[in-house]
Amino acid sequence: MHKSFIPVSPDSHFPIQNLPFGVFKHINTKGKAHIGTAIGEFILDLTYLSDNNFFSVLIPDKEIFRSGNLNSFMSLDKEIRKNFREKLKVLLDENNPVIRDDKKLREKCLYLQKDCEMILPVKIGDYTDFYSSREHATNVGIMFRGKENALMPNWLHLPVGYHGRASSVIISGTKVKRPKGQTKADTEEYPKFGESKLLDFELEMGYFISSGNKLGTNIKVDDALEKVFGLTIVNDWSARDIQKWEYQPLGPFLAKNFATSVSPWIVTLDALEPFKKSNVEQSPEPLPYLKPKNNFTYDIILEVYIKTKKLDIPYLICKSNFKYLYWSIQQQIAHHTITGCNLQTGDLLASGTISGIEPDSFGSMLELTWRGEKPLKLPSGEERKFLQDGDTVIMTAYCQGDGYRIGFGSVESEILPAV
Amino acid sequence: MHKSFIPVSPDSHFPIQNLPFGVFKHINTKGKAHIGTAIGEFILDLTYLSDNNFFSVLIPDKEIFRSGNLNSFMSLDKEIRKNFREKLKVLLDENNPVIRDDKKLREKCLYLQKDCEMILPVKIGDYTDFYSSREHATNVGIMFRGKENALMPNWLHLPVGYHGRASSVIISGTKVKRPKGQTKADTEEYPKFGESKLLDFELEMGYFISSGNKLGTNIKVDDALEKVFGLTIVNDWSARDIQKWEYQPLGPFLAKNFATSVSPWIVTLDALEPFKKSNVEQSPEPLPYLKPKNNFTYDIILEVYIKTKKLDIPYLICKSNFKYLYWSIQQQIAHHTITGCNLQTGDLLASGTISGIEPDSFGSMLELTWRGEKPLKLPSGEERKFLQDGDTVIMTAYCQGDGYRIGFGSVESEILPAV
Repeated sequence: MHKSFIPVSPDSHFPIQNLPFGVFKHINTKGKAHIGTAIGEFILDLTYLSDNNFFSVLIPDKEIFRSGNLNSFMSLDKEIRKNFREKLKVLLDENNPVIRDDKKLREKCLYLQKDCEMILPVKIGDYTDFYSSREHATNVGIMFRGKENALMPNWLHLPVGYHGRASSVIISGTKVKRPKGQTKADTEEYPKFGESKLLDFELEMGYFISSGNKLGTNIKVDDALEKVFGLTIVNDWSARDIQKWEYQPLGPFLAKNFATSVSPWIVTLDALEPFKKSNVEQSPEPLPYLKPKNNFTYDIILEVYIKTKKLDIPYLICKSNFKYLYWSIQQQIAHHTITGCNLQTGDLLASGTISGIEPDSFGSMLELTWRGEKPLKLPSGEERKFLQDGDTVIMTAYCQGDGYRIGFGSVESEILPAV
Repeated sequence: MHKSFIPVSPDSHFPIQNLPFGVFKHINTKGKAHIGTAIGEFILDLTYLSDNNFFSVLIPDKEIFRSGNLNSFMSLDKEIRKNFREKLKVLLDENNPVIRDDKKLREKCLYLQKDCEMILPVKIGDYTDFYSSREHATNVGIMFRGKENALMPNWLHLPVGYHGRASSVIISGTKVKRPKGQTKADTEEYPKFGESKLLDFELEMGYFISSGNKLGTNIKVDDALEKVFGLTIVNDWSARDIQKWEYQPLGPFLAKNFATSVSPWIVTLDALEPFKKSNVEQSPEPLPYLKPKNNFTYDIILEVYIKTKKLDIPYLICKSNFKYLYWSIQQQIAHHTITGCNLQTGDLLASGTISGIEPDSFGSMLELTWRGEKPLKLPSGEERKFLQDGDTVIMTAYCQGDGYRIGFGSVESEILPAV
């Protein structure tokens, strides 16, 4: 198997087959955000290599690596980006001495991840969140509207989605303050103001658009994957009590817009290619604009851990998989643009909470504890109905290959008390 | 009364008391977008004046006027922007010879509006749309859910809003293609795909954020107006048939994201100051975070005209007023940020459709024709239930002073057929 001169353990998320893209700062970058790729426990500094003419043939414009985000790089032609990743594989190959044997160069372009601060990698234009897990939509539907009306009539015909808030998308590690807002108890006549008592995570994955479409045109379902740069893990924080009171008739607003966390590394579709698989069968048959020749998904293992002040190690509370989604990325993009809505480089589209059939695969506290009726019991003796101040939520994702993993790292955030 | 050396008729929208900001191109700007202010039938080229040191004391950084949008200018301190408008008043004063008597300078900094192309003036980060007209929410509620449940229980307690699509906000004059999408007739079992048959406008006003707040903090209701740069007219195009099928449970998505049109001139709050008036009384009393010491609105006359291929002159179909809104700008901003959501320079927040009590003040075709039950009869002998291809919708807005108007110009767009 293809190997790097950088040692990579079999359970590392970042072998030479992955090479995801991110943005980081290190003491050597002198306050500037550089573009990098992850390899084992290291980051390869692509801005430094570009500045030193390693990529002058493929990507001569050095500003692309100096802008502090991935947007210009993402908007490059797909073939150029593909060839660029191949070039990185050559540079990192175990038999290539160029970096391997040049100690001085290594010191300037290879940093330990633990010595780096990761930055939000993309300047996000618009953020859209779908609702594409049938099990999640059914679970929420049962809790909010009863078993008979769990799935809305439109759900099996189109990927339901809504516009989210782009300004509050934050990078893993940024602490999240418990929001305050308006809530109303069923037993009360009037709403009251205070901190959210039902703070929740939502396990999602998101993808960034490499290049979009012009307003008034649409992206065909069979062309949609061409428009995707890569995927990250997304934690769509939700304040359930605020949501319940505000969401009708125009959808969630304040209940979601206080924070959405993303993992720092964007894993390309090229790296995920070996883990492509057929999407679930859909019945009723979708309308032709939602019917790709091949409807693909990806086999990505997802896990959620919780860490409390009393827990020594994070405790696994959810095991899910990206393949449990009903609507594929292709279908989401085709639907999003069918009216002529324009997607742009840097837009973030997320899947919606990814729940499976088994109760331990549910992707939110709302579902895991069934609205608090079945609290989670933690090894520390604590119980959780929803999240408490000081809790840290850790989501991780990876594809399991034969002796290697293509991983996403993690998105982790601690809950701070409301002020 | 204060006058300019530029002739301004009493019904002009742009007397020296207004001085709104916009972005334009003229043959003299050689393909570049310049920042300007409107005066009578002219535009004063502020980029040219800045480049020629007219503002070197107040705003020494010339890049602020060279960026092709207003964002940097908007983010300047409020006092600087106020003084800058005062400086423009001095330059345009009837007794000031500096520009008035310098023919060569006038040719380089004063252009007829009709010779200029207006550009989207702001790089919009996030776009939020509220739903703050009680009459509109009630009308729509009656049509969709019946008289008993017209207003949702939350409506009188908080300014309902949702996140819109920023990428498809377009400038007046840009033609709008009729969207295609998924719709389902009540009598059919399955949805079908095709062009929207119920294309509609929504009469709204929007405001741009000058400077925002940090994530995790909120903007207090009494500080909210400090964060507003100015207002424009907004046409929130809506495909009612797509909306009806898609909107539950997460709100409007494709029904709105194909286009949102804005008028080109941003009228500052300073210019609107004389037209400030107390907001409508609110009962039940809002929670303290939504209760300003003085709850202000503005008396802004709003009109909607329709022009068809058979009509010689645009036909007035709606007369409304900004003051009909129930929730004020202050309250919308305080609510938007109460959970800690961060607003940013350039964000657009819109009011929602502005309808009054009288049927001729309803701000959408949906309401004016009561879902098509009472078609509008046009002087050409035509009827309209919703908009047809080739129709042009024109919205205009102004404050009526004593012998002068503070106007917004108009937002006009023609409907193109679906392809």
